[in-house]
Amino acid sequence: MNFTKMHGLGNSYIYIDLFKEDLNEETLPELAIKVADKNTGIGSDGMILIGPSEIADVSMRVFNNDGSEAMNCGNGLRCVAKFAYENNYVSQTVFKIETKGGLVEATVHPDQNQKVPTVTINMGAPRLNRSQIPMIGSQKDQVVNEPFQLNEQDIHLTAVSMGNPHAVLFTDNIQSIPLLVVGPALEKHSRFPEWVNVEYVEVVSENEIHFRVWERGTGITQACGTGACAAVVATILNGFSQKGKEVKVHLLGGDLHITWKENGDVLMNGAAETICEGVWLG
Amino acid sequence: MNFTKMHGLGNSYIYIDLFKEDLNEETLPELAIKVADKNTGIGSDGMILIGPSEIADVSMRVFNNDGSEAMNCGNGLRCVAKFAYENNYVSQTVFKIETKGGLVEATVHPDQNQKVPTVTINMGAPRLNRSQIPMIGSQKDQVVNEPFQLNEQDIHLTAVSMGNPHAVLFTDNIQSIPLLVVGPALEKHSRFPEWVNVEYVEVVSENEIHFRVWERGTGITQACGTGACAAVVATILNGFSQKGKEVKVHLLGGDLHITWKENGDVLMNGAAETICEGVWLG
Repeated sequence: MNFTKMHGLGNSYIYIDLFKEDLNEETLPELAIKVADKNTGIGSDGMILIGPSEIADVSMRVFNNDGSEAMNCGNGLRCVAKFAYENNYVSQTVFKIETKGGLVEATVHPDQNQKVPTVTINMGAPRLNRSQIPMIGSQKDQVVNEPFQLNEQDIHLTAVSMGNPHAVLFTDNIQSIPLLVVGPALEKHSRFPEWVNVEYVEVVSENEIHFRVWERGTGITQACGTGACAAVVATILNGFSQKGKEVKVHLLGGDLHITWKENGDVLMNGAAETICEGVWLG
Repeated sequence: MNFTKMHGLGNSYIYIDLFKEDLNEETLPELAIKVADKNTGIGSDGMILIGPSEIADVSMRVFNNDGSEAMNCGNGLRCVAKFAYENNYVSQTVFKIETKGGLVEATVHPDQNQKVPTVTINMGAPRLNRSQIPMIGSQKDQVVNEPFQLNEQDIHLTAVSMGNPHAVLFTDNIQSIPLLVVGPALEKHSRFPEWVNVEYVEVVSENEIHFRVWERGTGITQACGTGACAAVVATILNGFSQKGKEVKVHLLGGDLHITWKENGDVLMNGAAETICEGVWLG
């Protein structure tokens, strides 16, 4: 079996080209666990299958390194778009990718050698109603800078759903945040029945923020595409920036450029990189 | 640059063939760090270079995933021997490998397709004098089942050097050992000036033992080749087995077969597996 390993901001997957490879559906979870193992496999956060689609230009399926199938993956989408364009599975620079979570529009930005260093993904509109997060509470419908009692501490948070739930907190100094304490405490707080991703934001200007994330079910990670989108939406909801402005988000794994458009959609632009190509012999 | 990823009992490295590849000496530490990174590289415990030698049949250099160069690596030696034989860099089944720690004799056991599933490495003679471990103490020269005060606890240990220092403790049940407590406490105890690897052994019979390791500078790992050798030497020194008998050692990552020969040498036999071959594009 041939494979390509790619990453977006350090979020890496083993990509299998289903235009060329024929895999048995029943073996996919086990295969994902095997190839993702750093010790006895190649090593990655999971496995992504790229293949034909009847309703879009290409399809994408994401398997986590525990073998479970995910709905979607922002960093993976950029790599899939890069792969599809560089391998001539699409000829246009704007095209649609089918995911388990729905259709997604991708725009590749090829260089003069037809290689794709960066990709823009339309992540759709955020959902801001309390019940859509979901978050339990009796106050007004949107959750913007709302006081929240976390153990003995008073914090303020803004809640945004990008298909998954995010709680955003603002800080004056991203270097001194209590993410290891607040992250796990807020993640599974009883007011978030589906748990929540926890993000800290330091606003540098209306065009630039620093970002750190505690990912639901995972903990601190280098990068979270939907989290960066939620952070920019929260930044605008709190009046630190405006719709239509591109905001550079500094994550541990690198930078993303996020725009909350006037029409409601959130665009995420960032790098996609190929690490290696090879033949799996395991 | 072409690469092969191989592992022995889950101890994995990116192998580069210097018979074909030309690398710049100054870039080696940085390259090892890059290829070993699970997020932005291939992912491994480090990088091993296989090349020609003026004093042996092939040479091997081991770089850890922090870029530092290691003296040797038991699990890596088996993979180097497999690679050298399968790629026809040696024609005989018994040959010598040059390492930074000295010359090592390897014996490959090819199947009918000339593939090498298992390899035997002659690890040389153990050093048993207290000063050779090194270990501070005034009692008799060899350290066999010697009482040792560790914090408030009385333990007994046997000390063996296989080029690196090992302290071996015996237990009736490998499933209930306090390795997370005793490992770090003994590793850096003031009586071991160069620190020490800590191993627990449960003797099943004179031909079979269970083994767990706390590796010096690393913590609990899946497998430690020199540790397994030290464990069998300690088992024999304590009268649970005899020289010349092959002892099967069950490690977390798989099994090794160890023989302390009458002539003093320790033979280590175990698997070497190829995971994937590819082209590094990073």
